[in-house]
Amino acid sequence: MRALVLERVGELSLREIDLPQEVGPDDVRIRLHTVGVCGSDVHYYTHGRIGDFIVNEPMVLGHEAAGTIIEVGSSVTHLKPGDRVCMEPGIPDPRSRASRLGIYNVDPAVTFWATPPVHGVLTPETVHPAAFTYKLPDNVTFAEGAMVEPFAVGMQAASRARITPGDTAVVTGCGTIGIMVALAALAGGCSRVFISDLSDTKLDLAQTYDGITGINLRQTDIVSAIDEATNGWGADIVFECSGAPAAVRDLFRIVRPGGTVVLVGLPPEPVPVDIAAACARECRIETVFRYANVFDRALALIAAGKVDLKPLISDSYTFDQSIKAFERAAEGRPDDVKLQILMDGEAI
Amino acid sequence: MRALVLERVGELSLREIDLPQEVGPDDVRIRLHTVGVCGSDVHYYTHGRIGDFIVNEPMVLGHEAAGTIIEVGSSVTHLKPGDRVCMEPGIPDPRSRASRLGIYNVDPAVTFWATPPVHGVLTPETVHPAAFTYKLPDNVTFAEGAMVEPFAVGMQAASRARITPGDTAVVTGCGTIGIMVALAALAGGCSRVFISDLSDTKLDLAQTYDGITGINLRQTDIVSAIDEATNGWGADIVFECSGAPAAVRDLFRIVRPGGTVVLVGLPPEPVPVDIAAACARECRIETVFRYANVFDRALALIAAGKVDLKPLISDSYTFDQSIKAFERAAEGRPDDVKLQILMDGEAI
Amino acid sequence: MRALVLERVGELSLREIDLPQEVGPDDVRIRLHTVGVCGSDVHYYTHGRIGDFIVNEPMVLGHEAAGTIIEVGSSVTHLKPGDRVCMEPGIPDPRSRASRLGIYNVDPAVTFWATPPVHGVLTPETVHPAAFTYKLPDNVTFAEGAMVEPFAVGMQAASRARITPGDTAVVTGCGTIGIMVALAALAGGCSRVFISDLSDTKLDLAQTYDGITGINLRQTDIVSAIDEATNGWGADIVFECSGAPAAVRDLFRIVRPGGTVVLVGLPPEPVPVDIAAACARECRIETVFRYANVFDRALALIAAGKVDLKPLISDSYTFDQSIKAFERAAEGRPDDVKLQILMDGEAI
Amino acid sequence: MRALVLERVGELSLREIDLPQEVGPDDVRIRLHTVGVCGSDVHYYTHGRIGDFIVNEPMVLGHEAAGTIIEVGSSVTHLKPGDRVCMEPGIPDPRSRASRLGIYNVDPAVTFWATPPVHGVLTPETVHPAAFTYKLPDNVTFAEGAMVEPFAVGMQAASRARITPGDTAVVTGCGTIGIMVALAALAGGCSRVFISDLSDTKLDLAQTYDGITGINLRQTDIVSAIDEATNGWGADIVFECSGAPAAVRDLFRIVRPGGTVVLVGLPPEPVPVDIAAACARECRIETVFRYANVFDRALALIAAGKVDLKPLISDSYTFDQSIKAFERAAEGRPDDVKLQILMDGEAI
Repeated sequence: MRALVLERVGELSLREIDLPQEVGPDDVRIRLHTVGVCGSDVHYYTHGRIGDFIVNEPMVLGHEAAGTIIEVGSSVTHLKPGDRVCMEPGIPDPRSRASRLGIYNVDPAVTFWATPPVHGVLTPETVHPAAFTYKLPDNVTFAEGAMVEPFAVGMQAASRARITPGDTAVVTGCGTIGIMVALAALAGGCSRVFISDLSDTKLDLAQTYDGITGINLRQTDIVSAIDEATNGWGADIVFECSGAPAAVRDLFRIVRPGGTVVLVGLPPEPVPVDIAAACARECRIETVFRYANVFDRALALIAAGKVDLKPLISDSYTFDQSIKAFERAAEGRPDDVKLQILMDGEAI
Repeated sequence: MRALVLERVGELSLREIDLPQEVGPDDVRIRLHTVGVCGSDVHYYTHGRIGDFIVNEPMVLGHEAAGTIIEVGSSVTHLKPGDRVCMEPGIPDPRSRASRLGIYNVDPAVTFWATPPVHGVLTPETVHPAAFTYKLPDNVTFAEGAMVEPFAVGMQAASRARITPGDTAVVTGCGTIGIMVALAALAGGCSRVFISDLSDTKLDLAQTYDGITGINLRQTDIVSAIDEATNGWGADIVFECSGAPAAVRDLFRIVRPGGTVVLVGLPPEPVPVDIAAACARECRIETVFRYANVFDRALALIAAGKVDLKPLISDSYTFDQSIKAFERAAEGRPDDVKLQILMDGEAI
Repeated sequence: MRALVLERVGELSLREIDLPQEVGPDDVRIRLHTVGVCGSDVHYYTHGRIGDFIVNEPMVLGHEAAGTIIEVGSSVTHLKPGDRVCMEPGIPDPRSRASRLGIYNVDPAVTFWATPPVHGVLTPETVHPAAFTYKLPDNVTFAEGAMVEPFAVGMQAASRARITPGDTAVVTGCGTIGIMVALAALAGGCSRVFISDLSDTKLDLAQTYDGITGINLRQTDIVSAIDEATNGWGADIVFECSGAPAAVRDLFRIVRPGGTVVLVGLPPEPVPVDIAAACARECRIETVFRYANVFDRALALIAAGKVDLKPLISDSYTFDQSIKAFERAAEGRPDDVKLQILMDGEAI
Repeated sequence: MRALVLERVGELSLREIDLPQEVGPDDVRIRLHTVGVCGSDVHYYTHGRIGDFIVNEPMVLGHEAAGTIIEVGSSVTHLKPGDRVCMEPGIPDPRSRASRLGIYNVDPAVTFWATPPVHGVLTPETVHPAAFTYKLPDNVTFAEGAMVEPFAVGMQAASRARITPGDTAVVTGCGTIGIMVALAALAGGCSRVFISDLSDTKLDLAQTYDGITGINLRQTDIVSAIDEATNGWGADIVFECSGAPAAVRDLFRIVRPGGTVVLVGLPPEPVPVDIAAACARECRIETVFRYANVFDRALALIAAGKVDLKPLISDSYTFDQSIKAFERAAEGRPDDVKLQILMDGEAI
C-alpha cells in the first residue's frame, strides 16, 4: 500500500509500506477520500517526538480522515459499502475500566493513528472498528468530514465546560484549536466568545464568525477588556488553548466567581499556577484529552448549519502533493488554519 | 394610580387603585413601557384561580414587563435613572434557606406579580428590588424586554436539561411556552428540535425558525417519527410543554437510553406515568418552576442575535385598549403567540 | 451440567442441562460457591414472566453469585485461577452506543442471567467475561460476595441521587431493595435515613442499623413525620422502593424544594403522578435500571466495614435443597430478607 | 465590651473595646460560649497579614464560635432566646449576584469575622444575622459547635468533590484542615482515605479514625503507595491540603484517569503545575473557598455520630487565659489539632 511515511525527523516519503488490512467481524474497510494535516503530524515531522511519544521507526502520518466504506465485517449492522464516513482515530480496549466508565479517551490501552508506533491513514485504504466510524449526513462534505476530528477537540472542551445557555466565554489562543473551541462554545450555548492572540491575521479570521470578538494582546490588556465587557463580574468560562504561561497566569483574573476554566492547550513544561487566586474565586477547572462520544454530535451541529467549518480549510493538495502540503504546514503561516489532502481526487 | 384591575372572574376594569410606592434603599422605581399578556393573567380573568391561588379581591394583572428607571434607592449602584430595564416578577426572601442555596424560585416565601394576593404591573409605575431588575442591552427593544419573562421559562428548562452540545431535542406542545423552550434549547446547544402539536397554524409558525421541525400529531405518530429521525436511538432530551396526559404517556418511548425528560407543562390533575418504562431507559427527569438566575443570560442571547423573539409578538395595544387585549387573548386564537400592552405609547 | 431449572410456571427441577462452556480470550470460568435467591427468580417461578420477559422454555435460575476462578482466557490479566470473585450478571455489547457512553446497563443488547431466554447460574460452573468479574477483597466472604448484586441496585440508586454529604433521605418500602438502598445512602453520605413500610417486622430489622429510623404507615402519617423531622423543609432525597401508587402520591409532599426523588421500585402499571406538585418544588427525578460501574465500589465499602450485609442473610441451603429454598422464598415471610444457596458446601 | 484584641503583629491584649451591638430585625444576639483558635487567627498574630488582608488597626480575633441566643430581631422566627447555636463567620450581601446564585462564599462583598478590618468574636457577646446562625442539635456540645467552622471547610471540599459512593480518596497534608477533609470525605461516601504528611505524630492521630491510612512521605513514595493500593488505577479523588509545591507536583500521578483533584491548601506563591499531565488523565480540578450551605449538613453528620470531632480538641482555656492559648498555638506543636477558649466557663 502506498502511504505518506515519516521516515525520521524531517524526512517524508511517499512509498509502498506493508499495512495490516484484515477486516474483523466488527470492522469496516474504508477508502480514504480526504485527510487533514494536523499540527501533531507536523510536529512529528519537524521534531520527531511529542512528549514521551517518539518516532523510532517509519510511521504513516494522518489522522483527520473521511472516506467511503468499501467492506464491512460480519457483525456490522449500522454501516454498509458506499456509506460516506469519518472516523475517530483512537481505538480503545472496549472492555477496559475506562471504557466501561464511558471515558474511553483516557483508556491507558488506547492506540491512536499517527502516534508512534501506530500508523496513520495517509494511504488509500484503512481498516477500522465500525464502532468508531460515523456516517456523514448527506449535506456534509468529505472536506467537512475530515474536519470533524479537530473540531471534536472543541466539542470535548465545550461539553466538559457544561455551558449554561447564555454564558460568556473567553478563549485564549487563536490557533486552529482555539477557533474550534470558540465555534463549539457558540454552538454549545454561549452567547458570545472573546478570543485572544498576538496575531491580527488569526483574530481577523476568527472574527468573521458572528459572536466572536478578537482581543489582540499586543494592544489590549485582557483583564481590563473582560472586566469591562462583563461589568466587573468576569467570564463564565475561560478556555485556555494557547499553552502559554502568560495566558495561564491571567486565567483566574478573567473568570468570574464560581466560574469555569477549561485547560485545552498543553504547555510542554509545568507552568506556574496561582492556586490561591483560583480558590479565591472557587473556580472549577476542567481538562481535555482528545474526545469521547462527540463525533455524532459534532456531525449533527455541522449538518444543522450551526457550525460552518468550510472557511477554515485554507487549501488542499492531491495525495501526490502531500509532501508539499507538509512543507507548507511546517512554515506555520498565520493565515493557514487547515490544509487537507485529497487522496483520490482533484485538489481545490 | 390607574391600573388594569381584575375585579372578579370575568370582570376587568381600568381604574384608580391604591398601590404601595415607597422606594427602599435596595429598590428602584420603574415607569412601565411594555407589558405582555400571559396565559396565567388570562386564566385568572377567565377562571378566577390557578390551583390554590384564588382571586378573592381585586388584583392588578400583568407580570411580563419592561420600562425605564425613574428613581433608585440609596444602596443601588448598578442601575440609574434613565436605564431601560426588564424585571423578574418574583420576589423571594433573600435570607431564606432556598435563596441561600441559589434556588430562590422555590422559596416558599416568594411573592409574584399578579398571583393572588399580589398586584401585577399593568399600571404606569412600580417599585421593585434592584436585584431583580435587569438593564436592557442597547440593541434590545422594550418589546423584547417584555418577552424576557416568558422566554425565561424556556431558559430555565434549557438550563436544567443540561444540554450537551449537539443534542437532539423534542418539545411536546407548540404553545407560547413550547416555542420559548424550543428557542432556548437551540440557542443552548441543541442541534435540532422537533416540536409536536395538533395545530398546523402553531407548527407553521414554529417552523419559521431554523432548526425546528414540526410534527402534527393528527397525521404523524411521534414515536415512529423520532425513532426514524434518530436511527432508533431516541431523543437526547424531551421537553414536555403540553401538560397533556397523552404526551406524558409517550415520553419514555421517544427519549433515548440515559436521556433526559424535562417537565414544563402543568397538568391540572395527576396523570398516569409509566415509571417502569422510565426506569428501563434510566432517564433523568427534571422539573421546572418559573426560573432563577436566567434573565441576564436570556438578555445576552437576545442581544447576541442568537434568539429572535420579535416574530412571536402577534399584536400590541395601548393601555386604554388593554381590556380589549385581554378579550382577544381569551379567544385563544391559534396564531396568537403574544399580545403586548404599550403603557405609554402608540400601539403597533 | 446439573442445574436448577425452571421448567415452566411453578415447576422447578434439579437436573442435567446442556450449557455452553467455552472460555474465550476475554472470559473466565468460575466454580460457583454461593448464589442468592432474588425476588425476580421467585417471580419467574410463581408467575412465569416479568413484564415482557416470558419464560417460554426451561431456564436455569440464579444471578446473585460468588465463586472461584478455575480458568482464564488468553487475554485476561487482572484475574487468575484461585481468585475469589463475584460477577455482574448483565453482559452488554462493549461496542454499543450505550456502552461507549458508560451506561452499559441500558444497552438494548444486554443479556442478563436468569432473564428469559438467558440461563442463570444455579449450576456448578459458568463462563463469564472477565471485565464483569470482580475479585473479592480478602475480608469479604462468598456470602457477602453473593450479596453484592442486590446491593449494587442500592449503590446505583445512591450514585444517581448525587448525595451531598449530610443529606437527609427517605426510603419508601422496606423490602430487600429498600434496605439495600438505605444502607447505600448512609454509606454514600446521608446523615440519616427514614424508611417506611406497613410491616413492623421489616422495619425492626432495618432499624437494627445505626442511622435508620422506621416509619410504620399504619400508625404514622409520613408527610407529617418528615415535616417534623426536617422542621418543615422536607427530605433532601426520597428513594421510592415500593412501587406502590400511594407512595408515589406522597413523594412530592415529603421532598424539599429543589430536592431529589429516585425511582427504584417498578409499578406493574402506570401510576398517577402529580406533575404540578413535582414542578412546584422543582425536583429532580432520577430513575434506576440495574447498575453500571458500581460492583468495585460496593466491594470497597463492604471491605471497609462501612456496609454490613451479613445480618440480611436470613438462611442458606445446599444446592440439593435449592427447590426448598425457592418454596420458602415464594412464601414471602416478612422476616426473610435474603436466602442463599451454597453450591458446593454446607448450609448454615 | 471586653475582647481579645490583636493590637499589632505579635501583640495581644485582653481589654475593653467598643463593638457595634444593635440587633436588627433579621439578627440575633448571642452570648459566646466556646471559641476555637484558628490557624488564620494565629497567622495574623504572628505575621500581621494573610495575603492582601493586613492588620492596620486593632482587631478582635476569633471566628470559630458557639454560644447561646439571648435576643432575637423582630423578623426572626427559626431561633429563640436560649437556643444553643453556632455561626457562619462570613456575612455576604444577600442581594448580590453571587448570593443569588447560591455561592455566597465568593460574594466580593462578604465580610468575615477576624479578617481585617472586621472584628472577630473573642468577646462575651455578638450580634449576627439569624440566617447564618444554626441551632445545635441536643446531642451536640458547645465544643463540637465551635468545631463546625473548621469542619465546614472539609464539608465544602467533600461536597465539591462530588464523591461517588465507595470512592478511594487521598488527602495530602495532615494538618487540621487535612484531617477535617478526611473525615468529611469518609462521612460523605468514600470507602477509605489515605493521608500523607511528614509527621508521624499527626499521622498517628489521623489513623485513630477508622478508614484513614497514613503515608509518611519520609519513608514512603506516595505515587507507588497509591499505585499499589489501587492496582495501578489511581485514586478517585485527591484533596490537596498542604499547599506544598511537592504535593501539587504529584497530584496528577496519583489520581486515576477521569478522577478529581480538589485544591484546598493555599500556596502563598504560584506553584508549577503539570497541565499536560492533568490533561492526559482528563482530571476535573475543583477549588474551595471557605464554604456555603454546609453548616446544617455538618451538624447533621455530627449529631448522627458519623463524624466525631471531639478527639481533635487538644486543650481548652478560659477567656482570661486566652493570650496563653494563642502563645501555645503559635508554637505549632505537632500533636495540637485544635485549642479552644471557653468564654464563660471552666477550662477542661
